[in-house]
Amino acid sequence: MNVDLILSSISQHVRLSPSETDLFTSVLESRTVYKKDYLIKSGEICRHDYFVNKGCLKVCYANEKGIECVTKFAIENWWVVDIDSFLNTTPSFFYYQAVEDTELLQISKANYHLLIEQIPAIQKFIIKRWQHSFIMLQHRFIQSNSLTAEEKYSQFKKKYPGLEQRISLRLTASYLGITPEFLSVLRKRETNSFS
Amino acid sequence: MNVDLILSSISQHVRLSPSETDLFTSVLESRTVYKKDYLIKSGEICRHDYFVNKGCLKVCYANEKGIECVTKFAIENWWVVDIDSFLNTTPSFFYYQAVEDTELLQISKANYHLLIEQIPAIQKFIIKRWQHSFIMLQHRFIQSNSLTAEEKYSQFKKKYPGLEQRISLRLTASYLGITPEFLSVLRKRETNSFS
Repeated sequence: MNVDLILSSISQHVRLSPSETDLFTSVLESRTVYKKDYLIKSGEICRHDYFVNKGCLKVCYANEKGIECVTKFAIENWWVVDIDSFLNTTPSFFYYQAVEDTELLQISKANYHLLIEQIPAIQKFIIKRWQHSFIMLQHRFIQSNSLTAEEKYSQFKKKYPGLEQRISLRLTASYLGITPEFLSVLRKRETNSFS
Repeated sequence: MNVDLILSSISQHVRLSPSETDLFTSVLESRTVYKKDYLIKSGEICRHDYFVNKGCLKVCYANEKGIECVTKFAIENWWVVDIDSFLNTTPSFFYYQAVEDTELLQISKANYHLLIEQIPAIQKFIIKRWQHSFIMLQHRFIQSNSLTAEEKYSQFKKKYPGLEQRISLRLTASYLGITPEFLSVLRKRETNSFS
């Protein structure tokens, strides 16, 4: 089980002692979700907090017309959880599906709370994580309401460097809330601006 | 300075010892913002975390056409902060304006971090608060993308009981992302369904 990336993700924000690091890594379990398989289906209970070691998940819901809406991608070094379902044991509104074969580390709910109880630095890390997640979601909310398609596309490329080359045009367009045809136009415009 | 409501807001989630309660209340400062005055203007740095003791604030931005978009209301018993600006000392994207004369309690950034350092229960409270805030914002994001105007209106009334009677039709409509005229139609439909 490769724990380098997850420990590096934490050490960017807080410092764990050797014994805290041992406790933290002892509760990690590895999990693989193959391309097109679901980590969590819509309506299921999310029972773990996840960290992506390798690969990519899409977080989606089906709108009233049954069309898939991509709200988020989770790539290497990202934490991902349906926090509402996880904390409140309610059915997940979203589904979490692998876009590539994806290697995860997972922490059960009992262990999530145990880590918060036992390791003060993890408490601080969790505070930073949720404050940051809130800020990111707020940016997304503002973007979807106020930015032009060009601006959203530019933000997407900053947020997920290189992801565009790994996923389909349709998925990127869905995340941006535009049609694949319009995304093609944007890409061509961008190419032409360099020619 | 009335600290009953803020202590009750915290005690619903965590327990503070008498000495922790003393430390917590010692850092609170009271502040009043009169109707139509700004707590934070767009572009200003948010330097405090706030709790509403009495009154109502609207949290807004001006869209590309210069039209006010209401993203949130903060009423009695609500915490409110521009977390991005507060943590990162960046200009606030939103503005925070009093809809009624509003009595607040405020905590400076230094004291916010001091409380987190000194009181483990406050760390836990802050985790719960930001997880909850994330869930609420996620609901709002989903609602704005997938619910009908009727459903959004129904959710608004559940989230802010009684607020509709305190604020203008225009503000409620802006929060819902519909025109005041359409909100009038929704209200009439509702009235007719009881007649």
